[in-house]
Amino acid sequence: MLSREDNELLTRIGPGTPMGELMRRYWLPALLSSEIPTPDCPPIRVRLLGEDLLAFRDTRGAVGLLEAACPHRGASLFFGRNEDCGLRCVYHGWKFDVSGQCVEMPNEPAESDFKHKVRAVAYPCQERNGVVWTYLGPAELQPGFPELEWATVPPEQSYGSKRLQECNWAQAMEGGIDSSHISFLHRDKDRDDPTLTRKGSAATKYITGDGAPQFEIVPTEYGMLIGARRKAEEDSHYWRITQWIFPWYTMIPAAGDIPIGGHAWVPIDDEHTWTWSFNWHPSRPFSDEELSTMQAGMGIHCELIPGTFRPVRNKSNDYGIDRDWQASGRSFTGIKGLSEQDAGIQESMGPIFDRSRERLGSTDAAIIQARRRLLTAASDLQKGIDPPALDPAGYRVRSAGLLLPRSAYNWPELARERVQAIPGVFTASA
Amino acid sequence: MLSREDNELLTRIGPGTPMGELMRRYWLPALLSSEIPTPDCPPIRVRLLGEDLLAFRDTRGAVGLLEAACPHRGASLFFGRNEDCGLRCVYHGWKFDVSGQCVEMPNEPAESDFKHKVRAVAYPCQERNGVVWTYLGPAELQPGFPELEWATVPPEQSYGSKRLQECNWAQAMEGGIDSSHISFLHRDKDRDDPTLTRKGSAATKYITGDGAPQFEIVPTEYGMLIGARRKAEEDSHYWRITQWIFPWYTMIPAAGDIPIGGHAWVPIDDEHTWTWSFNWHPSRPFSDEELSTMQAGMGIHCELIPGTFRPVRNKSNDYGIDRDWQASGRSFTGIKGLSEQDAGIQESMGPIFDRSRERLGSTDAAIIQARRRLLTAASDLQKGIDPPALDPAGYRVRSAGLLLPRSAYNWPELARERVQAIPGVFTASA
Amino acid sequence: MLSREDNELLTRIGPGTPMGELMRRYWLPALLSSEIPTPDCPPIRVRLLGEDLLAFRDTRGAVGLLEAACPHRGASLFFGRNEDCGLRCVYHGWKFDVSGQCVEMPNEPAESDFKHKVRAVAYPCQERNGVVWTYLGPAELQPGFPELEWATVPPEQSYGSKRLQECNWAQAMEGGIDSSHISFLHRDKDRDDPTLTRKGSAATKYITGDGAPQFEIVPTEYGMLIGARRKAEEDSHYWRITQWIFPWYTMIPAAGDIPIGGHAWVPIDDEHTWTWSFNWHPSRPFSDEELSTMQAGMGIHCELIPGTFRPVRNKSNDYGIDRDWQASGRSFTGIKGLSEQDAGIQESMGPIFDRSRERLGSTDAAIIQARRRLLTAASDLQKGIDPPALDPAGYRVRSAGLLLPRSAYNWPELARERVQAIPGVFTASA
Repeated sequence: MLSREDNELLTRIGPGTPMGELMRRYWLPALLSSEIPTPDCPPIRVRLLGEDLLAFRDTRGAVGLLEAACPHRGASLFFGRNEDCGLRCVYHGWKFDVSGQCVEMPNEPAESDFKHKVRAVAYPCQERNGVVWTYLGPAELQPGFPELEWATVPPEQSYGSKRLQECNWAQAMEGGIDSSHISFLHRDKDRDDPTLTRKGSAATKYITGDGAPQFEIVPTEYGMLIGARRKAEEDSHYWRITQWIFPWYTMIPAAGDIPIGGHAWVPIDDEHTWTWSFNWHPSRPFSDEELSTMQAGMGIHCELIPGTFRPVRNKSNDYGIDRDWQASGRSFTGIKGLSEQDAGIQESMGPIFDRSRERLGSTDAAIIQARRRLLTAASDLQKGIDPPALDPAGYRVRSAGLLLPRSAYNWPELARERVQAIPGVFTASA
Repeated sequence: MLSREDNELLTRIGPGTPMGELMRRYWLPALLSSEIPTPDCPPIRVRLLGEDLLAFRDTRGAVGLLEAACPHRGASLFFGRNEDCGLRCVYHGWKFDVSGQCVEMPNEPAESDFKHKVRAVAYPCQERNGVVWTYLGPAELQPGFPELEWATVPPEQSYGSKRLQECNWAQAMEGGIDSSHISFLHRDKDRDDPTLTRKGSAATKYITGDGAPQFEIVPTEYGMLIGARRKAEEDSHYWRITQWIFPWYTMIPAAGDIPIGGHAWVPIDDEHTWTWSFNWHPSRPFSDEELSTMQAGMGIHCELIPGTFRPVRNKSNDYGIDRDWQASGRSFTGIKGLSEQDAGIQESMGPIFDRSRERLGSTDAAIIQARRRLLTAASDLQKGIDPPALDPAGYRVRSAGLLLPRSAYNWPELARERVQAIPGVFTASA
Repeated sequence: MLSREDNELLTRIGPGTPMGELMRRYWLPALLSSEIPTPDCPPIRVRLLGEDLLAFRDTRGAVGLLEAACPHRGASLFFGRNEDCGLRCVYHGWKFDVSGQCVEMPNEPAESDFKHKVRAVAYPCQERNGVVWTYLGPAELQPGFPELEWATVPPEQSYGSKRLQECNWAQAMEGGIDSSHISFLHRDKDRDDPTLTRKGSAATKYITGDGAPQFEIVPTEYGMLIGARRKAEEDSHYWRITQWIFPWYTMIPAAGDIPIGGHAWVPIDDEHTWTWSFNWHPSRPFSDEELSTMQAGMGIHCELIPGTFRPVRNKSNDYGIDRDWQASGRSFTGIKGLSEQDAGIQESMGPIFDRSRERLGSTDAAIIQARRRLLTAASDLQKGIDPPALDPAGYRVRSAGLLLPRSAYNWPELARERVQAIPGVFTASA
């Protein structure tokens, strides 16, 4: 439970809010490179942390991310001309380069130097494995790029997608932290997806068989390491070990030699979220089957309405719930797709969930700690204390599933190597 | 005219408002039994008095009405599994019975007693003649079930329907109290509906012939008895005698051996209302013609968009107004259907009508008194004074139309027997 | 740049606001006569300056403009019966004539004189060349009808249309004042419209060739005369001379013997505007080609969704922007139609543009002055000082394009006759 004040603090992320200020200290995935595929292609609208922006790729291929409103009289640069290394407003021809500098102002007298004084707000961009990242914070405080494994492996080993989620970021991310819901929400007896824990596998048996995992949490500099212990065989426990990383990353262990997964829950504004889903394999390219599965919106990805990032099964159609399928017990929810199940339940909590009314149980321990860490960091930042997790190397982690003897008590020690993202080195999880 | 303050007091009905508190002391029709037709059928969304609820029918057939949000982390139980005498949240498997008690909590350790401490808000339900009723007030103050005639006659003598109305409850109910508008709004020369005052009948002649009825009002414990006196034959008056009953019931007299009618104007929230329409015959089953007419959405019922409770002719299509028909004079409004005529005119007053701007006339006397009674009762309740009309037997009334000599001055006395709902006893109205 | 306070003052126009009070002192174009084509035709909804009204044409052909809500209990007179020189509410039959007087009240006793005490708010109307004008201010302060040339020439020399614009009036009007954007926003190499400056004409060459006109502004009683000077031939300047007239009129010069143009930017409410476009020829009827061009929604008019005043190319479809056409350079915007280009860019500034964030340049001089004049007039009115431009004769102006020697410094003097609207006298512009 949070007080209403803390709930506001956690959920509001617009310019000037404490949580918004905290988030602006980190790099974030902003769009897919494929949304602006070629030099001088049309600009696209991008909304992040409550700010309306435009992304474009200039003549040299550099990506620009500018405030949407022309600094002159506020016309949207969306209608602009992307030409000759800059975006030109169609109202009076003012032109801006990717740095935001006004480079042409053709409706001013030739002798005017007004253009040198005008800059559009612009954010730096970097591309990694088909994703454009940006940093919305103060230029002088820009950290190094976070060395997340999915962003650093060779391109043929990484796949990322995004989907629109119609609720606040925090309740979405909490679903990603909460490793206990998978025993229920995602229980589909017929699912056998090559990018997910396979049907009939031991891991599936353990997850289905023990819905009340014991949680143990290790705070770390980057966030926390979460161990969820389930009964496995008579003498063993199945440990599902995941990370929560500042400010919005969660990870998913693979079982067997399949891709690892992760999410970034990036606020569009207070009531909308980009849910990014990443798969990567540390040591080999994806198989054709894996790749086509991900591209089809299966696994942890999502089937989207063509030309949009809105899921086919969404709030407006109750996520396509099939009550007969649900009643049959083959699917716990009657909703097709892991992402849709997550989105459905997270969005059903309302646009911004009121945490003053919740009743948390023992499996919510990790959520409680993540909130505390975020609230503390946001509050600290207001006092001038730098945020945690600004070290790029801190992001070199991956999740894992381990079968350990019941007698083992030091799982963080036993899992140490398995949760490090060592380039090219991979041991398949239990 | 009401002050803006009194208008707010009259119209706002959410949790914690004075009028909302008053309404929560009465039973109310909540949904049709046919919306949850069978044991373990899917739950449905129900919104009442500004509260989001879910109705479901459990394995034994009992009806549950729970808050929509799971007490755990607020996921909607709409997506839940209705199984084994309870509704189970698909997020983590928490399960609640119709009383709101948490009966299973499978993601907690087996030894935990947390589930005993968790209850969902649940409201008691009763079914009467195909309608599920509920009571949203404090359990210790729950009154007996109101003995409305339509709820107590044998099922084959009663028919109820509901429709969505896109405005505040009070302006809708005022339309039901106001017995003078029928001379205008509902004047359709070609209508001849077997469940309504028939074309060519004396009553129709009187109603059409005298649009300025004289109102006389008798306050009663349950609300008030309203006499509307119209000129009839040379030596007689036609008295149309109706009731307004706390807090939202209005009644309609029949003319001849046809069903009596009544409405309940139940707030969904401040800007939406369930308009319930009931027909019943005190002493005989409906004829096939009567029943099929009601089922077709004629009479006082409404033609609905299939699968919804939204009228086919609604605000978004100007209620299908046919200007040629209107101009011809065959229909006063050009709108088909009594319900649609009422809804159209009531919704046209805006989502919440501002009564500080109205100019009331002599035919609004009953409306003025009903408002005063409601405002006084709401205000009294805040001071700890119990609401009126909590006696179940007080609801045993029915409306009637009487032809009385012009010399008669004591109509309440002359009509006494005719407005009592004596089981099985019925004298056809004039 | 405006302070947020001044921006509010400029943009808010509802009843009781200073700018709204100012606007209510002027006549305004309210609807097309063709919207209420015949006596006793159905009434139509009209929203102006934040007020919900109904227009109807009575049996004698007189136009009435009444508040939409019946004074009785607020039902909308939209559903009313237009009959026998009055609009009759279908709820209880109250009837109002074009002056707003209640003339019948059939649900009151015959001896009642209540109807004499009840008036609906009604505004006076006048028709000019197919447009119904009204005055929303205090009756005792009603000025004479503004003698705008398009409203006073013979009907076959005038054409007016309106379109819905989804933004505040002020940013729309500023687009009309700003004569510098035409060098950019409206640059379409293939356009050759008989009602616009022709392709290949000298004026088109000058406008395209010099995107940085020098502005000189002459304040006048009616508003201001704006001279935009562009380089023309070696020894000449092209002067585009336009007017801004209190409180919302802008004018457009013709080049050659083609119709002159003008706009009225009339607020529907704070976030919606009726953009009126007028063409007229001072001395001859339109040619068939001119008329059919205007009727087709070309020139300064707009292609509308049939049965509505909403443009076919509108905000919801990004104004049909064709990115290939834009990239080709044949069209600067890729948007078809001058009106759609204007609407697109003006609406892209948001529902109400925040002028505290703008960076004005030298070509915005006329906009700056118009704002000042409006803010001063609104502020003065609050102090009891009468508004400017109430003299009907002050509106007898028209815009013009002149080719003047580079040495000419007294353009207002040289253009004096050309910018006067002398009936029947016309010299084609450069």
